[in-house]
Amino acid sequence: MQIAERVCRLGTETAFSVSAEAAAFASSGKTVYPFHLGDMNIPTPGNIAEAAIKAMMDGKTGYCPPCGIVELREALAADVNASHNTSYSAANVAIQPGGKPVIGKFILALMNAGDEVLYPNPGYPIYESQIEFHGGRAVPYGYLQRDGELRPDIDAMARRITPRTRLLIVNDPHNPTGAACTQEELERLAELAIEHDLYVLADEAYFDIRYEGTRKSLASVPGMLERCVILYTFSKKFAMTGWRLGAAIGPKDVIDVIATLNVNDESCSNHFAQYGVLEGLTGDQSPVRGIIETLRQRRDTASRLLNAIPGVHCFTPQTTFYLFPDVTEAMQKASLTDYERMRLTILQETGVSVCTRLHFGRALAHEDRLYLRFAYSGMDVPDIAEGIAGLAHFLEMRDS
Amino acid sequence: MQIAERVCRLGTETAFSVSAEAAAFASSGKTVYPFHLGDMNIPTPGNIAEAAIKAMMDGKTGYCPPCGIVELREALAADVNASHNTSYSAANVAIQPGGKPVIGKFILALMNAGDEVLYPNPGYPIYESQIEFHGGRAVPYGYLQRDGELRPDIDAMARRITPRTRLLIVNDPHNPTGAACTQEELERLAELAIEHDLYVLADEAYFDIRYEGTRKSLASVPGMLERCVILYTFSKKFAMTGWRLGAAIGPKDVIDVIATLNVNDESCSNHFAQYGVLEGLTGDQSPVRGIIETLRQRRDTASRLLNAIPGVHCFTPQTTFYLFPDVTEAMQKASLTDYERMRLTILQETGVSVCTRLHFGRALAHEDRLYLRFAYSGMDVPDIAEGIAGLAHFLEMRDS
Repeated sequence: MQIAERVCRLGTETAFSVSAEAAAFASSGKTVYPFHLGDMNIPTPGNIAEAAIKAMMDGKTGYCPPCGIVELREALAADVNASHNTSYSAANVAIQPGGKPVIGKFILALMNAGDEVLYPNPGYPIYESQIEFHGGRAVPYGYLQRDGELRPDIDAMARRITPRTRLLIVNDPHNPTGAACTQEELERLAELAIEHDLYVLADEAYFDIRYEGTRKSLASVPGMLERCVILYTFSKKFAMTGWRLGAAIGPKDVIDVIATLNVNDESCSNHFAQYGVLEGLTGDQSPVRGIIETLRQRRDTASRLLNAIPGVHCFTPQTTFYLFPDVTEAMQKASLTDYERMRLTILQETGVSVCTRLHFGRALAHEDRLYLRFAYSGMDVPDIAEGIAGLAHFLEMRDS
Repeated sequence: MQIAERVCRLGTETAFSVSAEAAAFASSGKTVYPFHLGDMNIPTPGNIAEAAIKAMMDGKTGYCPPCGIVELREALAADVNASHNTSYSAANVAIQPGGKPVIGKFILALMNAGDEVLYPNPGYPIYESQIEFHGGRAVPYGYLQRDGELRPDIDAMARRITPRTRLLIVNDPHNPTGAACTQEELERLAELAIEHDLYVLADEAYFDIRYEGTRKSLASVPGMLERCVILYTFSKKFAMTGWRLGAAIGPKDVIDVIATLNVNDESCSNHFAQYGVLEGLTGDQSPVRGIIETLRQRRDTASRLLNAIPGVHCFTPQTTFYLFPDVTEAMQKASLTDYERMRLTILQETGVSVCTRLHFGRALAHEDRLYLRFAYSGMDVPDIAEGIAGLAHFLEMRDS
């Protein structure tokens, strides 16, 4: 068939090909340490599963309203209001089959062809893909090292705003770096958005994965409630990535458009699963704390062992389930400075499967450091320790 | 927020507002007979629910591949090959969160802006909406009465083909009329598609809802396998509309594009539910026969009682779960010839809630008959009988 022209502008998640390679390597009988995978090997809390099964048995197997059952929309608005200091109601919430659909729907609802959209790079590759697929111009902003951690380069972002800039995508907390905006950074972002009349996608997929302290949302900065759409997902906080449930939360006028997109795209999200997450939000919170505790132990192990490798510098974020170590010196010593060669050599020699910086976009002009992304959400502590020990041994041998 | 220009071209299912009105009427304490609803009040077969729950408990709660688990893709290819006489493999199948997403993805994958797309009218309103939303030109073809039933107007379709025509949407069996193409009609459609190099969306959402005989698919006509994408859904045959599972089935090149759209749009469909429908396809088929038998009894009751009303002429289709009676004379006698006034008067006076022809597109120029659509999938036989008896009584009173 002759494919439509727009498809040549459609990107993908190249991390999927890393998964395929890791699977091929494993099928040859070798051990793989799947640090490439942003998935979780933690069971969904039992109370969520039970509530979903009860709803299934009670006949919640027919259609529900396009934006989801009203009890869930109300509970989610209340939950987000409590953590965000916002004033959302059910009318501001459209349940989605995952957090990801919010990216495309935000762009379809608010971007005209030819509009410029600022997006993070390194960042989740679907932003750039959806912007360009639907005829916009994707304008990247980067991250800069400061005191051993990466921070969004808001100065560069400001310089790249033109009269055609219409939308800004902020991923806070940020995949892959684990950066979480300070209050000052949120205020600077809000200032730019208000000054240049930008609408903002606040991708908060990792907002509730928080090991210490509290988080603030861009939506809670004065003047931002009316120009922010929050990408919300149940996937991470409830360890239910494969259930596919999330939400768009924002001003009623854009949520109404997203509701019509729901009618057009998928009618509604899985009906009985919505009763599961309703229990997740309103019932016993100890399973959620258990998920965080499990992830914290993994993070601490991975971060400690990575930082013990000569030439590896790993910031330890208080959020997300990723580490994004600067491996420049270690890789120079090992004569592995081509990203794909580095990744494949590490996989073949150690079974450690990772994504590199390039799985999160083309490198920007100023970049001179090398980064790998380690996801620790899909592996138990002993496997994390074994994998990184093997990597350390390999690098030591290669250096000598 | 300032909404994007394309949104002014986005349509919806106006049937949702009928649902809202019916709910409001019911909340005032009155009985509603929900004939407007294309939903089912039949439980999902127990073996499907059990298999899904087992998968959930076995940890199938993380991501699965974007096109679905390979066991299901293989089983579905085999199942469709058996009923369609086709030669699909897993590579031709992309699992979706419902049948509906196939409409938008087919259009995004194959239609360029400005292309003309032939679509059925009366027909499912999302075709027109998605064509125009993504910058195409929606060109309707109608249905003509012949021997008491409605048939697709293939002559009109042929006349409307221009050098800009690129895609053809065929809904066979057809909602709302219940028309199912004869072998001769399928061959004529194939001839047009091949002659004019059209790619075809074969929306077969009701293919397996079959009360008598066997059905042929447009995809099985020689030359069509390579230019047909089948919209497949588990929703109707397994009474699981609210689970949201379906598939796109077609040539590998377009399925590959749809796979990339899956990565961009929703990552994957619900993981554990796929084990449910795998059991549905490969396990005990008696629950599926039970669903058909239940629907048949409802169809027979509804059709018999509607045809007993003076001035109502109702064809009894061997497929779908809709009746589309010609009510022209009955409504003229009742002085109700404005569709919306007719519908609201019937709702208020009898509690019978229906869709009219206008919920399936703007009337075409030649149309001079009035039609209502009765869905019998969401009501038990006694309620169907009571509702239509009330309608008959109202029309009799109104006539006298």
